[in-house]
Amino acid sequence: MAQKRYLFTPGPTPVPPQVLAALAEPVLHHRAPDFREVYARVLGRLQDVHRTQADVLLFTCSGTGAFESAIVNLCSPGDRVLAVSAGHFGERWAAMARTFGCEVEELRYPWGETPSADDLARKLAELEPVSLVFLVQSETSTGVIADVQALAAAAKEAGALVVVDAVSSLGAVPLEMDEWGLDVVIAGSQKALMTPPGLATAAVSASGWERVAQATMPRFYFDWERTRRAQEKLDSAFTPAVSIVVALDVALGLLLDGGLEAAFERHVRLGRACRAGIKAMGLELFSPDEDRSAVVTAARMPEGMDSADLTLALRERHGVTIAGGQGELKGAIFRIGHIGWYDEFDIATALSAVELVLGELGAPIERGIAATRALEVYAEGTPV
Amino acid sequence: MAQKRYLFTPGPTPVPPQVLAALAEPVLHHRAPDFREVYARVLGRLQDVHRTQADVLLFTCSGTGAFESAIVNLCSPGDRVLAVSAGHFGERWAAMARTFGCEVEELRYPWGETPSADDLARKLAELEPVSLVFLVQSETSTGVIADVQALAAAAKEAGALVVVDAVSSLGAVPLEMDEWGLDVVIAGSQKALMTPPGLATAAVSASGWERVAQATMPRFYFDWERTRRAQEKLDSAFTPAVSIVVALDVALGLLLDGGLEAAFERHVRLGRACRAGIKAMGLELFSPDEDRSAVVTAARMPEGMDSADLTLALRERHGVTIAGGQGELKGAIFRIGHIGWYDEFDIATALSAVELVLGELGAPIERGIAATRALEVYAEGTPV
Repeated sequence: MAQKRYLFTPGPTPVPPQVLAALAEPVLHHRAPDFREVYARVLGRLQDVHRTQADVLLFTCSGTGAFESAIVNLCSPGDRVLAVSAGHFGERWAAMARTFGCEVEELRYPWGETPSADDLARKLAELEPVSLVFLVQSETSTGVIADVQALAAAAKEAGALVVVDAVSSLGAVPLEMDEWGLDVVIAGSQKALMTPPGLATAAVSASGWERVAQATMPRFYFDWERTRRAQEKLDSAFTPAVSIVVALDVALGLLLDGGLEAAFERHVRLGRACRAGIKAMGLELFSPDEDRSAVVTAARMPEGMDSADLTLALRERHGVTIAGGQGELKGAIFRIGHIGWYDEFDIATALSAVELVLGELGAPIERGIAATRALEVYAEGTPV
Repeated sequence: MAQKRYLFTPGPTPVPPQVLAALAEPVLHHRAPDFREVYARVLGRLQDVHRTQADVLLFTCSGTGAFESAIVNLCSPGDRVLAVSAGHFGERWAAMARTFGCEVEELRYPWGETPSADDLARKLAELEPVSLVFLVQSETSTGVIADVQALAAAAKEAGALVVVDAVSSLGAVPLEMDEWGLDVVIAGSQKALMTPPGLATAAVSASGWERVAQATMPRFYFDWERTRRAQEKLDSAFTPAVSIVVALDVALGLLLDGGLEAAFERHVRLGRACRAGIKAMGLELFSPDEDRSAVVTAARMPEGMDSADLTLALRERHGVTIAGGQGELKGAIFRIGHIGWYDEFDIATALSAVELVLGELGAPIERGIAATRALEVYAEGTPV
């Protein structure tokens, strides 16, 4: 019999069967009326998920492609920008901006730390004027969720625009684009939006558009103005991944019908349950032990063990995919994503499988405690 | 009852049910072994379809994104390039190269003409040295298939590298990347490769790689070297559209199992049948009346009629999607795509529907002749 497969990574994430079924519908033409109807609904639903009235531009690419679109549409060569980083993705955006000719300042923390709004305010005060700040809401490499509201306020106080990487957080933890005054928000289809990878978005506020008009970096495929003009007419600048757009429509419908607050609450409870299970197993958390850390839980491997052995055995012997560490954390941590179409039994399964394999690899793990504790904590219910 | 839908455009094209079913499979992680197995097979099959030993780089984007990757990986600002254009796409690549700071020379024909290798040789002899030439194999806006083998030979004779847009032609008409000495070939998933849009490719020869090493335009998401390094390890630089990769594997399997020569022959017969039907209807062909024109057939509207009325009525009343004209041909022509998962009854249906609606719109069309003639010509069999 075919082995069952469990996808417990922080992206791609599990996709609900209704969304998978939508992918298998006959392909629509991107300029035909039946697609335009779906497209209009998707664009509106994306605004709802961002809590914004701003344009949400849809690109066929990964989250990295959409972040690149922010750099080339907002910057001119030589622009000074500040990247706040505390992990793999924050550092990627700094490297990317340098590649395109920005002068990049960094507020750089060791991987796993949580950026502070006070540090950001101080850094911006020290520097020559910096007009653009890059923030990461959910640092997928470490499990840290930054307080984007406070960080954005500090940046705006200093007169800078903010670009927020919300690729793995949008739809999982609160993000209020308009209320928090976020200028640009970048997201992707394959995390809490419960859709396969292939689409990514850039939500652009009025302040963002003002800057675009001044930015001279060349752009074509990722040109925001071209994309906005097309979207205004429910057209696409270039052939989009229509099947994934149709799937995203179904997934966003599921998310919004349940209500965003309910999704945020579920993610908080899943994070709590996962952390409780990890601690019950006797392992040390790497990600912060706080409610905000609701997207991915990272734990340190037992002394002397390599997470590559864990992730390999989980995949090969048990059909379970979790993530190891990235970059400098390779081997040292493992990560369980709990984003999107995910429930408490997924947490229990993930923890049971980790427990089983760590035992097989020789770690002194008491059996059965982790899943039990996770389900208990999940049942404790509504977070304050 | 739900109306049946017919997709007869030159992209997206109809997708076989096996390929649609593959899209609906649970999402795989892009670094898990079950995905790597599919990924390795897709990369190999893409080489087979290109008839090349060169690297075929896979990007999550449209064909335009992949063409942009060619410009930013092959060029430095100020580079002189020559774009051969005779329609919408040729002109797009010239505009794109200008956007990125190339000095663009053009060998520009009126829309619908077929570029000539002699003209290209003369143009290259006239110009200061030009080291890069852009060619379009299938100009989707007009139905013209260029003789890329002869054009590439002329360019190479003059010491220039060639980049070939084969987005709508790869898998439909012959393309021999290695035998014809093509340096770079760009393609997309949503045409003859019978897969939904979302993936595009850049096949890069050794001569292409030599130029990449000298090219200074900034690139990140579309960076070829980064993508090659990842693909060598069956890794991805950025999260790819895994579901579409899985679907592409199935589609390429169908194409290669049937044999590329059989696919080329079928497309020639479909093109012949479509043109015979158009002529039998008393309409004037816009695309060339030649076997090579096997991807899309373009016809002029009857005097005084607008193709927007035809395409709208076909969609709204009959569930049939064909394409109108683009750019300067808007309103003047209509286009029937016959690419990929397409047979002679699709041609008959497309022609019957066009005939029906043109009659409703008041054109003096004799009924029943077009489909009959198309099926007769298709049955005449194997092209020489």
